[in-house]
Amino acid sequence: MLAGTEKAFQRGAAMSMTNDFSKELAAASDPAKRSWLASANEPRCDFSIQNLPFGIFSDARDAAPRAGVAIGDAIVDLAALRSAGHLSLDADEDVFARPSLNAFIALGRGAWRGVRVQLSALLDAACPTLRDDAALRERVLVPMQGATMHLPVDIPGYTDFYSSKEHATNVGSMFRDPKNALLPNWSEMPIGYNGRASSVVVSGTNVRRPMGQLKLPDQDRPVYGACRKLDIELETGFIVGNGNALGEPIACGEAEDRIFGMVLLNDWSARDIQQWEYVPLGPFNAKTFATTISPWIVTLDALEPFRVAQPEQTPEPLPYLRHAGAHAFDVALEVLLRPEGAGKATTISRTNFKHMYWTMAQQLAHHTVSGCNTRVGDLMGSGTISGPTTDSFGSLLELTWNGTRPLELESGGTRTFIADGDELTLAGWCQGEGYRVGFGACVGKILPARG
Amino acid sequence: MLAGTEKAFQRGAAMSMTNDFSKELAAASDPAKRSWLASANEPRCDFSIQNLPFGIFSDARDAAPRAGVAIGDAIVDLAALRSAGHLSLDADEDVFARPSLNAFIALGRGAWRGVRVQLSALLDAACPTLRDDAALRERVLVPMQGATMHLPVDIPGYTDFYSSKEHATNVGSMFRDPKNALLPNWSEMPIGYNGRASSVVVSGTNVRRPMGQLKLPDQDRPVYGACRKLDIELETGFIVGNGNALGEPIACGEAEDRIFGMVLLNDWSARDIQQWEYVPLGPFNAKTFATTISPWIVTLDALEPFRVAQPEQTPEPLPYLRHAGAHAFDVALEVLLRPEGAGKATTISRTNFKHMYWTMAQQLAHHTVSGCNTRVGDLMGSGTISGPTTDSFGSLLELTWNGTRPLELESGGTRTFIADGDELTLAGWCQGEGYRVGFGACVGKILPARG
Repeated sequence: MLAGTEKAFQRGAAMSMTNDFSKELAAASDPAKRSWLASANEPRCDFSIQNLPFGIFSDARDAAPRAGVAIGDAIVDLAALRSAGHLSLDADEDVFARPSLNAFIALGRGAWRGVRVQLSALLDAACPTLRDDAALRERVLVPMQGATMHLPVDIPGYTDFYSSKEHATNVGSMFRDPKNALLPNWSEMPIGYNGRASSVVVSGTNVRRPMGQLKLPDQDRPVYGACRKLDIELETGFIVGNGNALGEPIACGEAEDRIFGMVLLNDWSARDIQQWEYVPLGPFNAKTFATTISPWIVTLDALEPFRVAQPEQTPEPLPYLRHAGAHAFDVALEVLLRPEGAGKATTISRTNFKHMYWTMAQQLAHHTVSGCNTRVGDLMGSGTISGPTTDSFGSLLELTWNGTRPLELESGGTRTFIADGDELTLAGWCQGEGYRVGFGACVGKILPARG
Repeated sequence: MLAGTEKAFQRGAAMSMTNDFSKELAAASDPAKRSWLASANEPRCDFSIQNLPFGIFSDARDAAPRAGVAIGDAIVDLAALRSAGHLSLDADEDVFARPSLNAFIALGRGAWRGVRVQLSALLDAACPTLRDDAALRERVLVPMQGATMHLPVDIPGYTDFYSSKEHATNVGSMFRDPKNALLPNWSEMPIGYNGRASSVVVSGTNVRRPMGQLKLPDQDRPVYGACRKLDIELETGFIVGNGNALGEPIACGEAEDRIFGMVLLNDWSARDIQQWEYVPLGPFNAKTFATTISPWIVTLDALEPFRVAQPEQTPEPLPYLRHAGAHAFDVALEVLLRPEGAGKATTISRTNFKHMYWTMAQQLAHHTVSGCNTRVGDLMGSGTISGPTTDSFGSLLELTWNGTRPLELESGGTRTFIADGDELTLAGWCQGEGYRVGFGACVGKILPARG
């Protein structure tokens, strides 16, 4: 190991129990930084050396799910790297050998940063440790192609918010009153509801079209049948890294320190089931059949260079929801739809996470203001992310205005809602100068309803 | 051991892997059965030999939470009983030594029944094994007084239903339209919503009055403050014993086989927070600050003799919600309120679980009809249990008609909603001839809001 990177490596390890990583973290996000792994330096690669997202994978060599970090077209096997003596961390021997990241995340931000700084040094183009040691690379670097991704965390609780003003306005216009589309409480708090954690699945899991009660306009009573208005919701989600005890709210200004990182999230929705069931207690069966998340958790440290100001909030939020400074993030987002057998997917929406009215910090502060406790691994969905233009909406409900304006597909045909066999993909990335900090894909294919 | 009980014991053990326990189970619920432990034979004791509910406890002798069964004024330490060689079960050595019942419950109904049958034999007045062995009793029997009860299960998911017709009608009359109090979907499905599992606490845990957004009638904008309309909801909950895979619904007729047992549940509710936040996605902060459950899970086998017909359902439910036979249970329920320092509690409600319109089986079938998966330990609340008369309502909201008809307390003073220092107790039991199958108390005391 050369003196410079050796020093950075050791400093990273030594500092992994403190929070003062400013220099090392800045270096890890340096736009000029390049890796000795060529695939990581491709301008459109999601997994640049500036990213280093965490996930859980298995492969043909070892069927046991374990922790990894994505770099280019490969995965760094953290358990293998640590047992090879190249990753220093004050933690249980098996912390990276477990089937979820929860134990690692529970170590706290100092540990997350320590690992980020060490990996950034090891993967740097100038660091020979892995670059020049084929046998070591063989042990610790796994090709992404052929690896199986698993849910990155055990999710003790899943909450979904409703924080896009454009989305709430669109839905209010369609189903309530276009003149008073936003309900009075919407501008005062990040409205949210409890989701179903059991049915959160990882990208690539097929999703079966749900059965349920539908109320057809020409009939007095509901019928039992397959959902006819199956939809996506383009969302992001954040993973709680440091929860709070029951009765001890998290202050808005401290909330970001509690967040480990972000994923893409598809909140599959059965619009017809939802419309019939949701009054007065909110969506239930319309949402509980599946929620898909992307497998890589992009840390807030990796997202830091892409921090931007949130939209102006009027009226000014109550004091418990105030935080100084910029708390939105510039994440480009896309939705792609590919019919079964089609060679080409159609990009049906392009939008950006920065449009969100309420910030993640405000969501977490509001969630806990009553004293509600949160736990490591809790998943908090942003709510559908719709932009200001008709091609930037985050659901088919809005893109086709409840089915009245079908979308043309590049592979031929049209769509109002999702057809059997359709594969829906969410993509998202922060665009740096010549590199990306990306999320990888969040994919799900729809299987026909059960008999 | 006498020949008769020895035989029953061995039969229980041998059959613990099958479901054919009809004779043994009938004997365990025989109203004439008495225990050698005198306290279990008191007519008003919740924990008769016919009951045998499961819980997790610790005590001064051993601070490690472990599994027990309640009998009279004592707890049978299942881990100790098994290691003493008096409880046969085909399971991991430490299945009863864990801090939750999940691993035991996951063994399935055959195992639950095997343990029930063996304990029923061992605790029978005629069985000398424990009765005549003071040293063995000392090892396996723990005084309830002085023991600490813990949450009986790790709860991966908590769902709350809304299945009392009287409650839904009362709420609809108060907040919507008295002439159309029941919404059209209510009579077609057991309406439910996802609750927050993280804040489910065991009986005896103090509950802090929540802070949050309140919309006062004389102000344009909400204020941040302590809840002024703090309420209880008298509910029961059932614990899922055998979940279903994603995409594979549970048929209504098979749903009861998936249920391990029942607890009492207090769904604490901040009515003012709820009223402002709940449109359109349902209750959130108004409910997430705490939900209290009783520590003992009463099995469906123990409840079997108290099975009664559910109310007639009109219109007839859709086929996926139909089940032949009786699926309600006759459980007497009470709510008691004791102000801080008062010697005497006032019984503010008396009602019965048998009034519930939708059954537990229908709730579970509906929950999974979309394909939503459930897991061992999932908690499903009944919804507020209100009877037909004004003194049988299950919430202060209804008992005081949103604060307009204050309740007189026997210790002096009145209540509309809960005051700081008030201790609220739910009690419930099935009344047999000369014995009870009871739930024990579900207690919580309200602490003042955090400044």
